[in-house]
Amino acid sequence: MTRSALERLDAVELARGLARREIRAQDLMRACLDRIAEREPQVHAFAHLAADAALEHARQLDAGALRGPLHGLPLGVKDLFDTHDMPGAYGSPIYSGHRASWDAAAVALCRDAGAIVVGKTVTTEFATFHPGPTRNPHDTTRTPGGSSSGSAAAVADHLVALALGTQTAASIIRPAAFCGVVGFKPSIGRTPRAGMKLLSESLDTVGGFGRSVADAGLLASVLTGDARLQVDAPDGATVPRVGGFQGPDWARADADTRALWDRVSQRLATLAPGSSAVATPAWFEPLASLQTDLMLHEAARGLTDERLRHADLLSPRLSANLSAGLAVSATAHATNLIAVQRVRQQAASLFGNHDLLIAPSAIGEAGPAADGTGDPVFCRAWTLLGLPCLHLPLGVGRHGLPIGLQLIGRFMEDERVLQAGAWLHPRLHD
Amino acid sequence: MTRSALERLDAVELARGLARREIRAQDLMRACLDRIAEREPQVHAFAHLAADAALEHARQLDAGALRGPLHGLPLGVKDLFDTHDMPGAYGSPIYSGHRASWDAAAVALCRDAGAIVVGKTVTTEFATFHPGPTRNPHDTTRTPGGSSSGSAAAVADHLVALALGTQTAASIIRPAAFCGVVGFKPSIGRTPRAGMKLLSESLDTVGGFGRSVADAGLLASVLTGDARLQVDAPDGATVPRVGGFQGPDWARADADTRALWDRVSQRLATLAPGSSAVATPAWFEPLASLQTDLMLHEAARGLTDERLRHADLLSPRLSANLSAGLAVSATAHATNLIAVQRVRQQAASLFGNHDLLIAPSAIGEAGPAADGTGDPVFCRAWTLLGLPCLHLPLGVGRHGLPIGLQLIGRFMEDERVLQAGAWLHPRLHD
Repeated sequence: MTRSALERLDAVELARGLARREIRAQDLMRACLDRIAEREPQVHAFAHLAADAALEHARQLDAGALRGPLHGLPLGVKDLFDTHDMPGAYGSPIYSGHRASWDAAAVALCRDAGAIVVGKTVTTEFATFHPGPTRNPHDTTRTPGGSSSGSAAAVADHLVALALGTQTAASIIRPAAFCGVVGFKPSIGRTPRAGMKLLSESLDTVGGFGRSVADAGLLASVLTGDARLQVDAPDGATVPRVGGFQGPDWARADADTRALWDRVSQRLATLAPGSSAVATPAWFEPLASLQTDLMLHEAARGLTDERLRHADLLSPRLSANLSAGLAVSATAHATNLIAVQRVRQQAASLFGNHDLLIAPSAIGEAGPAADGTGDPVFCRAWTLLGLPCLHLPLGVGRHGLPIGLQLIGRFMEDERVLQAGAWLHPRLHD
Repeated sequence: MTRSALERLDAVELARGLARREIRAQDLMRACLDRIAEREPQVHAFAHLAADAALEHARQLDAGALRGPLHGLPLGVKDLFDTHDMPGAYGSPIYSGHRASWDAAAVALCRDAGAIVVGKTVTTEFATFHPGPTRNPHDTTRTPGGSSSGSAAAVADHLVALALGTQTAASIIRPAAFCGVVGFKPSIGRTPRAGMKLLSESLDTVGGFGRSVADAGLLASVLTGDARLQVDAPDGATVPRVGGFQGPDWARADADTRALWDRVSQRLATLAPGSSAVATPAWFEPLASLQTDLMLHEAARGLTDERLRHADLLSPRLSANLSAGLAVSATAHATNLIAVQRVRQQAASLFGNHDLLIAPSAIGEAGPAADGTGDPVFCRAWTLLGLPCLHLPLGVGRHGLPIGLQLIGRFMEDERVLQAGAWLHPRLHD
């Protein structure tokens, strides 16, 4: 199979070929490494590349038994997850060259399923706002989004088949939107965080990226251990009833997002009977603000050692954010944690008769890289509620850059979101 | 001040003397190190002792400005928390000699407040069931309880003033009960877990040990950043209304615990009007079982790397438990996570008109060391609900070993539990 043919396949197609031994893992890996050699100087998706080890691992997989559903798939690992065999710095000069003694649980699960870790992908500083060197592969003057910048860019640019990410505010959905790939943030608590650098414990969620809904589902099935998340695009699937949720920050959506919204809403009206607009309840409105206070306070407490012993190596923006987090009083934080428990329990009421919601993923297209990784406004509340979120790339904006929308499911209904997404994606795409 | 005088003081008294410079940190540290030299060969509380560094740190504190509320206090750190300057193995031969690059957030917060880390205290294997070498200082043929075995024993035996612990099932309250010290498990989510070895993310809670309620509150105030948790024993405090909660496993309580319960109930009836027995609602009954399934499944997923690369270094009991955890299906786990969210929201209904609940901490006295670290049955549900729990040592059992009961507060009402505990403790103690 030629390099370009390998590149055109999505992960589930590659996995099928690898499982049938019609594709050799080492050929696929060589194609990826060739592509990386060509594109990495512009895209800068990797914080560390383990080319030789990846190729050797591929050879071993070709020579041995089938390992699992990710057998032979090249995987990018956000540089927030520890690996026992390569350095990782969490996007911070504090940990430059740092080596861990373990594989993070998410990495170990993927490796056990046969995935080959190609390298560590660039994260913003501790998964916050200070950007890394990664650029948007569709236009290298623009941001890939953050914080899972390298993972989204690497999948979009066919450097890897799948990639791990994490989301605390918008760190999976926004880079998926900007890079035009599928991003999936599972229900909170369903994917293990052991061995990753924690940012905000009430919010941090492990998920990932693929080039199709089925790809994202395949990866999530390994991370959760739940085979129901392996979804094909079933033509005979139950047609989902989709609630259109503009939310309290709709005024921030730009003209591209509004035009996409109108087009998708019209198509849903004929495609998915029972779909309709959903009003924003009053209790939803403060959620983005609550998410912000929660994240800043927990980050400031969780990064205490870095604040105290390495203050000079923190970016000015992170330092300012940690100060803002400390300004949220412990009493206010305790009240916030009570509120989180309450609104997570209320979240089911958002859905009414709908199976899932559709909502903006980002304001619009990716902005200039110099302006940062973009605004998380449209993701904060969903991360706070801990609901499964699936970004679908659905078209392009005025500059020809990807735009899309996210599907949101009820708590722990990850498989329903993925099933509906697999059915809707080809039907809603331009 | 003589060594024995220093040993008789609790942490808040020592902190007051240190803050006034009436006690020198180095004298206090020398007294602790002398006591450790004498007792450690029998008690085995430490996995790693950093005597020289602790003494040097004490000298620096004596020579410098006051650092914070823990200024100069010798602190034991459960060997589940990373420190940048000493090894830590999480109670497992897999990580023998392992060194981390950071201080866990809980450690960094304590150090920032002026605490001196004396060493790492023994934990059971990854905070599960396989015991470490620590023995109960009241009778070295008996278990100190687990998993925070070394921390509870070190505080009980006056080797340190305060010690950090964690609880996933009963790992703070049970060793506090067996060693006869005050143990406090804060509301879940209120104390940071960054830089500790995670066992079960839905349950793991950072807390600690002291020789008085005020001591435990002092430590918790630093861990949470909430000064309201610094409680004295205010004579003019509002008298708490205490609900007596025997719970679904009362039949497991032994004769010592039953006699203590009767004595305390009678005293509460006159001491705290409005106190009365609380019935166990039906929804509470499956909680211990839910906690077990949740913990085993999350431990099995979180310890994936250890399962796969170091299976030969896991104890047989842990291996069996991890297999049991994998036998809980991902679908069942998702359902369990929904149940957790629901019952945590229901927990407030347990309290009725009471300010807090009182419940058994353990079946009875500490058993023989050869029989393991004891049964967590009386703590599982409270950890699952994420409520603040405070163990009060209240007397001795038939073998002259400590027994006591735990106070439980509403979610995030940690300060109320500590205040009530400070008021009740001298009034309920034999």
